[in-house]
Amino acid sequence: MPDNNSQYPTACLLICCPDKPGIVAGVSQFLYQLGANILDASQHSTDPREGLFFMRMEFHLPNMDKTLLEAEFQAKVATPLKMDWQIDYSDHRKKMAIMVSAYDHCLLELLWRWKSGELAVDIPLVISNHQSLEKECSAMDIPFHYIPVTASTKKEQEEKAIRLLEEQQVDFTVLARYMQILSSDFVRRFPQRIINIHHSFLPAFAGAKPYQNAYTRGVKLIGATAHYVTDELDEGPIIEQDVARVSHKHTVDDLVMLGRDIERQVLTRAVKAHINNRVILFGNKTIVF
Amino acid sequence: MPDNNSQYPTACLLICCPDKPGIVAGVSQFLYQLGANILDASQHSTDPREGLFFMRMEFHLPNMDKTLLEAEFQAKVATPLKMDWQIDYSDHRKKMAIMVSAYDHCLLELLWRWKSGELAVDIPLVISNHQSLEKECSAMDIPFHYIPVTASTKKEQEEKAIRLLEEQQVDFTVLARYMQILSSDFVRRFPQRIINIHHSFLPAFAGAKPYQNAYTRGVKLIGATAHYVTDELDEGPIIEQDVARVSHKHTVDDLVMLGRDIERQVLTRAVKAHINNRVILFGNKTIVF
Amino acid sequence: MPDNNSQYPTACLLICCPDKPGIVAGVSQFLYQLGANILDASQHSTDPREGLFFMRMEFHLPNMDKTLLEAEFQAKVATPLKMDWQIDYSDHRKKMAIMVSAYDHCLLELLWRWKSGELAVDIPLVISNHQSLEKECSAMDIPFHYIPVTASTKKEQEEKAIRLLEEQQVDFTVLARYMQILSSDFVRRFPQRIINIHHSFLPAFAGAKPYQNAYTRGVKLIGATAHYVTDELDEGPIIEQDVARVSHKHTVDDLVMLGRDIERQVLTRAVKAHINNRVILFGNKTIVF
Amino acid sequence: MPDNNSQYPTACLLICCPDKPGIVAGVSQFLYQLGANILDASQHSTDPREGLFFMRMEFHLPNMDKTLLEAEFQAKVATPLKMDWQIDYSDHRKKMAIMVSAYDHCLLELLWRWKSGELAVDIPLVISNHQSLEKECSAMDIPFHYIPVTASTKKEQEEKAIRLLEEQQVDFTVLARYMQILSSDFVRRFPQRIINIHHSFLPAFAGAKPYQNAYTRGVKLIGATAHYVTDELDEGPIIEQDVARVSHKHTVDDLVMLGRDIERQVLTRAVKAHINNRVILFGNKTIVF
Repeated sequence: MPDNNSQYPTACLLICCPDKPGIVAGVSQFLYQLGANILDASQHSTDPREGLFFMRMEFHLPNMDKTLLEAEFQAKVATPLKMDWQIDYSDHRKKMAIMVSAYDHCLLELLWRWKSGELAVDIPLVISNHQSLEKECSAMDIPFHYIPVTASTKKEQEEKAIRLLEEQQVDFTVLARYMQILSSDFVRRFPQRIINIHHSFLPAFAGAKPYQNAYTRGVKLIGATAHYVTDELDEGPIIEQDVARVSHKHTVDDLVMLGRDIERQVLTRAVKAHINNRVILFGNKTIVF
Repeated sequence: MPDNNSQYPTACLLICCPDKPGIVAGVSQFLYQLGANILDASQHSTDPREGLFFMRMEFHLPNMDKTLLEAEFQAKVATPLKMDWQIDYSDHRKKMAIMVSAYDHCLLELLWRWKSGELAVDIPLVISNHQSLEKECSAMDIPFHYIPVTASTKKEQEEKAIRLLEEQQVDFTVLARYMQILSSDFVRRFPQRIINIHHSFLPAFAGAKPYQNAYTRGVKLIGATAHYVTDELDEGPIIEQDVARVSHKHTVDDLVMLGRDIERQVLTRAVKAHINNRVILFGNKTIVF
Repeated sequence: MPDNNSQYPTACLLICCPDKPGIVAGVSQFLYQLGANILDASQHSTDPREGLFFMRMEFHLPNMDKTLLEAEFQAKVATPLKMDWQIDYSDHRKKMAIMVSAYDHCLLELLWRWKSGELAVDIPLVISNHQSLEKECSAMDIPFHYIPVTASTKKEQEEKAIRLLEEQQVDFTVLARYMQILSSDFVRRFPQRIINIHHSFLPAFAGAKPYQNAYTRGVKLIGATAHYVTDELDEGPIIEQDVARVSHKHTVDDLVMLGRDIERQVLTRAVKAHINNRVILFGNKTIVF
Repeated sequence: MPDNNSQYPTACLLICCPDKPGIVAGVSQFLYQLGANILDASQHSTDPREGLFFMRMEFHLPNMDKTLLEAEFQAKVATPLKMDWQIDYSDHRKKMAIMVSAYDHCLLELLWRWKSGELAVDIPLVISNHQSLEKECSAMDIPFHYIPVTASTKKEQEEKAIRLLEEQQVDFTVLARYMQILSSDFVRRFPQRIINIHHSFLPAFAGAKPYQNAYTRGVKLIGATAHYVTDELDEGPIIEQDVARVSHKHTVDDLVMLGRDIERQVLTRAVKAHINNRVILFGNKTIVF
């Protein structure tokens, strides 16, 4: 897979527009004339009734001003083809915040992968409503903010968190088993910029206590789901899911333990896809290139 | 795995009783004194609050009368230990009926496995509300009964089906994508004796059109669930489940096509578990040894 | 996924050329000017030392002569960019031959999928060195050729088979558990046009008796591998593989039975990829788009 | 699953003996008379030619002296039935050593699971031929021993390591990506007491550079294998294996990165099985109950 962080910077273009002939030709011709080499391209056409075309194109950045590149792309390609588009550059290192409660497994997984170089982001802060994971963050020189939340303080504490995220110019936030439900105000401030890991195979077992409910129903597989957070609890666009096999032998505690491994894997894959600009929203669904 | 159909017949004992010391000793001592060799044994204790013990024991049948064996087991072991129990013998070949509508994949899978010797059952009849699969059954000399159902004829047609199942002394019935909902009367007549394949990972997408609903929700895995049929639609005890990975590229038709493969596998495994006396009901859940 | 067999024909272009800027632009511009709409495109660049670029592009066929289309593509795009390329059309239905011995599972799986519309091919003939599966083929009106092989007749019998494949202008041949090793002469006549299913996870357990060897080694997963047949036994380019979990409980016979399910799935996926022009050879490896 | 570490201690009995009637009866009767309640039992009979019987039985420890329990079991059960057996107690916390080189992922995975309570062992020491992971061990108060190895110092450095393992009375050692080949002398000193993680799906790609070799061969799945270390490199009894899907898009570096996740999972499962006395050796294979 192409490396976003190799020697020379690359750019990644995400496009959505009405499907019609000439889109690939238009974009690739534009890039070719600037001297950009396409490294990877993926595309998807929805069914004809919807008539939409999506594309992700990664290319070596030509030797030119980014502002100029974007202005020319808008004028010569995007406007004529009625495109929604965004561009990201591999020399722009995204800023990822993490919010966590007391369970450590998702946080530690992200930190280990970050330290090992798998996640090409900066982590300017971790926010938690518990103090228990401060030491793990300090050991990696990541600022840890303890922001406890009660029913009566929720509004002001959320504002405190929002202020921190905005001060740090965070690109996106990962809820790594953050056990508080964010308010609509919070969520709407960061559309498609908050990723949550839910500990069930959604839409099965939405809401609280999914492992308990999976046990009670007697399912033979348990799962985890990473999704963008929207106003409706556990209803946001799904980025990634996976499952593991269980049996009558497993107690609820066993499910929780097994589930941790799925949560770690699923959240990691979703975060990587987001970092590498592989996810495009389409209604309440995702296209993951 | 032990072979139910080897040269000498074997017996399979399923037990449920209050958990207390001495159960394994009691059963195994009883069998040893009769000269029976235990071939396979599995057990499960529920958590202490429920306090139940389940066991499956397979053994070479001693050279004795089955009626006597059962009477002695009742008197010497089952009564003292307050057991619910049942016994099945490998020289009793179960009778399996199949009910099917127009989709052929689950029926053909079962028939192929039956013909290849994987399913040690007799198939005295197939019932369908369509005529389209008659030829496939005739080719294997399996009687095919066309029993169309309309809203107004449902009651009498179900009675016709029940009569056939009872005349043939069917042990259990497989709904191999039978697209009619059986009435409570039908279901109650055959408790834990009707296996259905549902084309979703239950409890997600119960009811009609699960692939359409999976597509709309944008899940990244689709599944299938084999369960015993109870009065409540798609709520019966789950025997087996599995999933396959999908993406934004898959249309609803693709999901249907991929789903067929999961349905075939999941239904087969559930039917094999039932045939081999590996399933014990416990509330609305199954223990699958 | 795009449907090769929808109302209007589509074309599928496979390309391999030295990697350099302008390839996507060149091809897509060419197609755009002809009025062709790109339906799906996948590309792959090897690492810079190899410096190769591969692309698969599927498009609605413009209203023009195929010979002319191909000549123009050669002159305007392929020659300047030093391309190896091939094109296939959805209104060209490939001809698939099947060679099989006595095991029925892979043959029946292919026939069932063909009949259900999953495999968009014609099957002009089945060749077998046993007579046992004739009835299954006749039932679907597929000509069955019994060509027994012994050490002394191998050469002439292979020639008979080759003659049949050539008379029928077969596009590719599937060895659906054909238990004879084809001679070099045979194999070289049909490069990248013979697909075999090997009953192990290659390169583990190449050669004969893979399930026996897997049992002896005590592996915890067994597998199957679909690959193009080359001169070197079980060494050809791998198209698809999969595995299933096993344990100490499984006898060799159990492995054989479980393996059948993996073989069926893996062979099906490989055959579909080949039919849909998704496989490009690159040295002894495959790119499967 | 039964919890080895609940309030009251439990015992776990592993048995191998010639298969004949009365074994389950004999053992369970013996335990019943002592007042022990059986919590979990698994058994396996090999095929009749080998004629061996294996059993794992977990029970609440009766209120009696362990030495006496073992002496009585030997006299009353094991000797008459010609058993090889061993017993372990949940109040005996095993001592696990870890040997590691410079890759951190397997070590950190084990340490995290240990800290989270998943692995019921003590870790008296970590031995490494590199200094790089000292800090990670110190942070958890685990003694770290730096024992560099060169061709000329191998013998004496191995002796130093052996001395440490013996001084600490280590029960078993995990090679968590320890990149040195242990000498025969070392291996023979700890039979079935050294677990290695090999970064391929053995027997495919034994020896050095398995990811490079998997890349070159073009396999579609990569794997990892946990096995007991024996005299023959990568040929020891396999405890656990798993795989992940890969494609032509993955570079060797990608395979290494993906492989880390499989290695972590597979090694963890193997170590858990060993800790919980679920593994019995049988020739060069394992029975994992």
